[in-house]
Amino acid sequence: MDEIRHRVGIQAPQEEVLVQLTTLDGLANWWTRDVSGDPEVGGELMFRFGGPDRFVQMRVEEITPDRVVWRAVAGPDEWVGEAFTFALGQSDGETVLKFTHTWREPVEFMFHCSTKWAYFLLGLKASLEGGKGTPFPGELQISSWG
Amino acid sequence: MDEIRHRVGIQAPQEEVLVQLTTLDGLANWWTRDVSGDPEVGGELMFRFGGPDRFVQMRVEEITPDRVVWRAVAGPDEWVGEAFTFALGQSDGETVLKFTHTWREPVEFMFHCSTKWAYFLLGLKASLEGGKGTPFPGELQISSWG
Repeated sequence: MDEIRHRVGIQAPQEEVLVQLTTLDGLANWWTRDVSGDPEVGGELMFRFGGPDRFVQMRVEEITPDRVVWRAVAGPDEWVGEAFTFALGQSDGETVLKFTHTWREPVEFMFHCSTKWAYFLLGLKASLEGGKGTPFPGELQISSWG
Repeated sequence: MDEIRHRVGIQAPQEEVLVQLTTLDGLANWWTRDVSGDPEVGGELMFRFGGPDRFVQMRVEEITPDRVVWRAVAGPDEWVGEAFTFALGQSDGETVLKFTHTWREPVEFMFHCSTKWAYFLLGLKASLEGGKGTPFPGELQISSWG
């Protein structure tokens, strides 16, 4: 198993980071404005990115003060069945977010998603530090793939 | 073995991307202004990031039109001995850069470096598309780690 991994430190309380990960308004601040569904544990979230086949549906598997876990149930073939984990903790006076996204194989799409996740997570950080997130639409296009 | 992986598409000729990876001026545009050494195959490059122990020394193992490979010979313990590969190609009318950085273990520092590499590579892209790179110093601090 391969994983995309990222880490950012955020100058905001852990509870505020959690809100960005567990509410529709919060998710719209940094990943995609076009988010809908039920953000509670056991619920499903739909994240859309424009075209009819540009979406991912996530089942919320876990929410604790320290961890949010989603599982993709529909969307890109390479994503379906994979886990998306946001682990939160405190270090050096900041809230540290560690992100992982599992992959069966390190296909080229994984390389793209790795860079794009970094971009969105840096937007999440900015959105909590007095700046603005950079969600879809209008986010940086890192290649012809989006 | 684990790997950090990224992918960006750049609206610039492949030769221009190669220059950013294989010359001191090019490297200073996107990774660190404090770069010195011999950028030819077999040479060694010193990249510095402020403090006396914030550096990495890379041996240039390979340069072809499609690939640049470095090996860390001094610097962070977790980096020494690891390979840094920049693979270039053409797709959809853009130059695609795929980056890998190998790791023995997926330690927390790897998570940090993954996000930071994405940031610098997006700066490399910007530097070739009419914008500016975001090298050290003055780059975004993604956490208390830098």
